[in-house]
Amino acid sequence: MTQMLKAKQETNTPEIEQVAKKEGLETSLIRGKIASGRIVIPKNIKHDIPAIGIGEGLRVKVNANIGLSESKSSIAEEVEKARVAVEAGADAVMDLSIGSKTQETRKAIIKAVNVPIGTVPVYESKDMTEDSIFKAIERHLHDGVDFITVHCGVTKESVEALEKQKRTIPMVSRGGSIIAKYIMDTGEENPLYSNYDYLLELAKQYDATLSLGDGMRPGCIKDATDTPQLKELEILGNLVTRAREANVQTMVEGPGHIPLNEIEENVKMQKRLCQGAPFYVLGPLVTDIGVGWDHLVGAIGGAIAAMHGTDFLCYVTPAEHIGLPEKEDVRQGVIASKIAAHVADLTRGIDIHKDHAMSKARANLEWEKQVDYAIDQSKFSCYALKNRTPCSMCDSYCPIKRLKKE
Amino acid sequence: MTQMLKAKQETNTPEIEQVAKKEGLETSLIRGKIASGRIVIPKNIKHDIPAIGIGEGLRVKVNANIGLSESKSSIAEEVEKARVAVEAGADAVMDLSIGSKTQETRKAIIKAVNVPIGTVPVYESKDMTEDSIFKAIERHLHDGVDFITVHCGVTKESVEALEKQKRTIPMVSRGGSIIAKYIMDTGEENPLYSNYDYLLELAKQYDATLSLGDGMRPGCIKDATDTPQLKELEILGNLVTRAREANVQTMVEGPGHIPLNEIEENVKMQKRLCQGAPFYVLGPLVTDIGVGWDHLVGAIGGAIAAMHGTDFLCYVTPAEHIGLPEKEDVRQGVIASKIAAHVADLTRGIDIHKDHAMSKARANLEWEKQVDYAIDQSKFSCYALKNRTPCSMCDSYCPIKRLKKE
Repeated sequence: MTQMLKAKQETNTPEIEQVAKKEGLETSLIRGKIASGRIVIPKNIKHDIPAIGIGEGLRVKVNANIGLSESKSSIAEEVEKARVAVEAGADAVMDLSIGSKTQETRKAIIKAVNVPIGTVPVYESKDMTEDSIFKAIERHLHDGVDFITVHCGVTKESVEALEKQKRTIPMVSRGGSIIAKYIMDTGEENPLYSNYDYLLELAKQYDATLSLGDGMRPGCIKDATDTPQLKELEILGNLVTRAREANVQTMVEGPGHIPLNEIEENVKMQKRLCQGAPFYVLGPLVTDIGVGWDHLVGAIGGAIAAMHGTDFLCYVTPAEHIGLPEKEDVRQGVIASKIAAHVADLTRGIDIHKDHAMSKARANLEWEKQVDYAIDQSKFSCYALKNRTPCSMCDSYCPIKRLKKE
Repeated sequence: MTQMLKAKQETNTPEIEQVAKKEGLETSLIRGKIASGRIVIPKNIKHDIPAIGIGEGLRVKVNANIGLSESKSSIAEEVEKARVAVEAGADAVMDLSIGSKTQETRKAIIKAVNVPIGTVPVYESKDMTEDSIFKAIERHLHDGVDFITVHCGVTKESVEALEKQKRTIPMVSRGGSIIAKYIMDTGEENPLYSNYDYLLELAKQYDATLSLGDGMRPGCIKDATDTPQLKELEILGNLVTRAREANVQTMVEGPGHIPLNEIEENVKMQKRLCQGAPFYVLGPLVTDIGVGWDHLVGAIGGAIAAMHGTDFLCYVTPAEHIGLPEKEDVRQGVIASKIAAHVADLTRGIDIHKDHAMSKARANLEWEKQVDYAIDQSKFSCYALKNRTPCSMCDSYCPIKRLKKE
């Protein structure tokens, strides 16, 4: 019995109740949207974590990607990054480890933090046989992974569209490129697509959420919102329907690199083609030349995407396009995305009391209180607090003091 | 003869030609928009600098605020900040110094950098007599200041609206609060408003641009887009018309703190009420609780504001709401705003070749070239360059290598 099936049967699961309470919404509303697939609760039956909801009408959530590369980092470092991410406010963590120690890393991360964990099982499949891929998926689900990215929309059809398109950068998705390469080399169909029903069976066993990957996401502004991307999105829309029929929860992943003025249409298109499925975007990055600042570039895109209906933001760190993020990059990436998420929440009146509390403290020149209300308290060391006086900017020109009624 | 008068007479000044060349647009187009007031070239006749244009259809420009406070910094430090700002890409610098050394600082900054300089002369008026205020303005213009912020819209009428409004924070504008306090205490009208014709006379003598200040800008999300703000904007719209009749160039300043979903309407309202005058915003800040990260919060707001038509972005530094910015805060503030400006330019196809060049370098794994194309080259030290190999994230899983045609 998955969350979705129970919701369809109008059962209030403890998870539904937890989500309703956290979001301050009616249980029946959450239940209804889980039944219809507009909200998901990524939670493997083997993973004992507090439930979080992702989807329509809820607070925008943030994911942090971590994980070993082949040439850098260690399990201990990645576990520490997971902790840093959650401490900074990440709602979920994806372990994207590659190399020889992926399972050990995954288990350590699952143990270390108390949030939903996502992975990309295809990284662990040494060849592209069905057996190898599905064995990897089973291992991940058995270890307690709550949501898995599966690039089911990289099919013969979408790869054909990709080959026709003169993209500047053909693909930037690691998982997607593994599958595309397989299709190009063998002419065979993507096993995750041709065996989608079996994938649904596995997901159902663990009540895992499928995150339908966007292997065709554009990797630069010039390639944004093109035919291969849209072709894949259409395919994913159909796969959402099939998952719902099987009572499996799904999210849909999205770009990537998009110019600012195309974000609204991207979000609306996804919501329409995928019947309101939760939308999970990477960034989006609204310029290609902000390297070193891609957390900020992603926060611009993420805030707008979320204002228009994106439900789940995958952070981007300052190290994006440079190398594997360090601990401090992870922290900065999470905070940047948390700000973007909150900015979008505010546009719906959600959590506006936080901003109001901060502003009242400012109006009263109460500096200690302002620290408490800051998204990132660590940045508030500052002159102001050390000296117990208002900030060093205005001194006797302080407009707040000037207009204070005695 | 001001730039505006010459443009009305269909004379192509060297400044108009410089701007047309930099922007890659027809001279007649620039000239026409200077004549109508939709583009300004802030340049005091006593200040020998390259001309920059601000307004409709041009690249979005960025201003950096620096300047002494009473308790912190030195002239040398502020001069150094001005240099850092311009090196990082600031198109203009405002010297907001307060205290006893304002003129000395101003002269040093004007000498140190080769961009338009703005100031707020009312800071230098020790009392609010007409004589003292206009003497300060004359000193600033005589020193070669290119644009001055004048809070002409803080009038008896808008102050009355402010007193009726139960704002969380009545005012956050230093200059605006000086004038509001004067009106509240004396019941007299704002001298900058009652003597506006004389102000226009002075500006005309030096061909200085008036930046009509937004003393009533909201200081928190809860106070955004309220009656006092709109009342002031209406007044400023009328003052724009009067300035154009006098052949004086004007910009209009705007908020401040605005929720993300109110930015578009704010920009459109300004453009409508002020007949297309260049719009100069501070941020805007789309949440109050991002303290320490206000450069990022301002970049989110700035990118959207500029996409909808804002022409000139005043940076916000990470030190905003904490204290006077240090040199590194200035650098970060400028880069954040430059990214926001570029992101908005991209939505109109401006400078997209920069992103395309970066993407081609990425597609070819050419790391050295990528450094050249980055907005902030200093962040690209990185593993990648040190090792002359692709980045440490994907290693053998690199999607670009995987799909490379041999």
